[in-house]
Amino acid sequence: MSPLKNYINSKCKIVDKALNRYLPPNSTKPATMHKAMRYSIFAGGKRLRPILCLAAAEACRGSEANAMPLACAVECIHTYSLIHDDLPCMDDDDFRRGKPTSHKVFGEGIAVLAGDALLTFAFELVGKAKGSRRYSNQALVKEVADASGSLYLIAGQVADLEGEGKKTSYQQLKYIHERKTAALLTCSIKLGGMSANANPTELRALTKFGYNLGMAFQVIDDILDATKTSEELGKTAGKDAKAGKATYPSILGMKRSEQEAAKYTNAAISALKPFGSRAGRLHQLADYLLNRQN
Amino acid sequence: MSPLKNYINSKCKIVDKALNRYLPPNSTKPATMHKAMRYSIFAGGKRLRPILCLAAAEACRGSEANAMPLACAVECIHTYSLIHDDLPCMDDDDFRRGKPTSHKVFGEGIAVLAGDALLTFAFELVGKAKGSRRYSNQALVKEVADASGSLYLIAGQVADLEGEGKKTSYQQLKYIHERKTAALLTCSIKLGGMSANANPTELRALTKFGYNLGMAFQVIDDILDATKTSEELGKTAGKDAKAGKATYPSILGMKRSEQEAAKYTNAAISALKPFGSRAGRLHQLADYLLNRQN
Repeated sequence: MSPLKNYINSKCKIVDKALNRYLPPNSTKPATMHKAMRYSIFAGGKRLRPILCLAAAEACRGSEANAMPLACAVECIHTYSLIHDDLPCMDDDDFRRGKPTSHKVFGEGIAVLAGDALLTFAFELVGKAKGSRRYSNQALVKEVADASGSLYLIAGQVADLEGEGKKTSYQQLKYIHERKTAALLTCSIKLGGMSANANPTELRALTKFGYNLGMAFQVIDDILDATKTSEELGKTAGKDAKAGKATYPSILGMKRSEQEAAKYTNAAISALKPFGSRAGRLHQLADYLLNRQN
Repeated sequence: MSPLKNYINSKCKIVDKALNRYLPPNSTKPATMHKAMRYSIFAGGKRLRPILCLAAAEACRGSEANAMPLACAVECIHTYSLIHDDLPCMDDDDFRRGKPTSHKVFGEGIAVLAGDALLTFAFELVGKAKGSRRYSNQALVKEVADASGSLYLIAGQVADLEGEGKKTSYQQLKYIHERKTAALLTCSIKLGGMSANANPTELRALTKFGYNLGMAFQVIDDILDATKTSEELGKTAGKDAKAGKATYPSILGMKRSEQEAAKYTNAAISALKPFGSRAGRLHQLADYLLNRQN
């Protein structure tokens, strides 16, 4: 296994252990709720956001212990947003990562509440984080509330909902991707830096890195969805096109989409310069995500 | 107007002004979302929780400015929980306080997201609160996350959902009321005290007051629902009975329900003793809530 794959696997395990430690056990009353929270949290997510959070802390010479509650908080927010996105009144998805979605297993009422509970739990975790000299716990709470609130994560989902069945412009699609994908990715990376007392230059660099990595990630997602088979992707291919959803290739064509992906990728990589060799992991993770085939 | 009614009206106005100041304006993009958030926040709520929060701060000689973000945060959480409770997959209510519910006006998808956005916004507000010498901002975040998380507010809603159409015992109904009603009421009152640097005796007293006031409030709600006409209540009477939901009168009978209400009321009032005359407002508010006819 490559050193990077080793790194990803080991961080994945550490994040899973932490989530398991933080979340109330299945047996805690109401058992249905804690089972539903754990079902979606442990449904095979790649832990991309927590790993980026930990790697950003590392790049700023921070401790894993300080970053961990934040890494897990962001994963809880990501998971809550997926549970609610999959509801019949939103994207109406029965499967995610090959498993039945929360509302298919637990019913819609419990799925709504499980999302609510994970969102609330995310703030419980952020509230536990230590902060650092430059960034108080209050600054961390604000960061998470902003990225997941009505101006970013939720704004993206609203634009996505309202765009259904309508012609979407390039500007609108960019707006959606910035909010649905890039905002929480950027937040994950910034939180890692903040937990490690990043200086202002470092935090600006992480913000730029996060934004461009998030946008590249989403453009590449769109490209893979349009070009790979379901077998290659490990999930239903061509889903967006089938749902009549706008994607980068459907708006810009494949060639310009690939140029956009390359542009964001280069901007992400060059944002890491202030870190010099300390950004090794972030650099490798970006390469890995942006050259992926599924 | 009685001095208490004056007090309630003036605090109501101050809370409304603060909510209006804190919430993004209707025109902020995505406009649908900010309209939906404001629609439910300004749909005629009595502002019971914020007023109790401010009165608790007063009883501990605190400032209104310190308590205000917390008072508004609790109102946002209360409102989010109503939006989600009213969804077709939950209680399926088309009207609340005589107005169409969020999902009737904006559709289910936006209603789910408006609830999510208000819950997130609540933590943004808590993150803004100052805390006091004894209670850090982190302690405030923890208080809110606990009361609204999977062990309290959400646990109550889960038990409510799971109890539908089944025979509910007295113990189960008490469990639901403790979590759906008393937990957030207690939290509102404690937050007021914490913002005002309440000493441990005062905070214990406020906690006992909040729990008993919350329980009395809910038992009385059940009694009024069973005995008053829709006209007297200003909302559909007998709704719980029609929905097959357990209430105190349906389980204990009217006489024992009235005894329970009196028991909780007395416990609430006697909890205020440590405050002496400083608890005047809290005492009056309790009398007012517990002798109400609608």
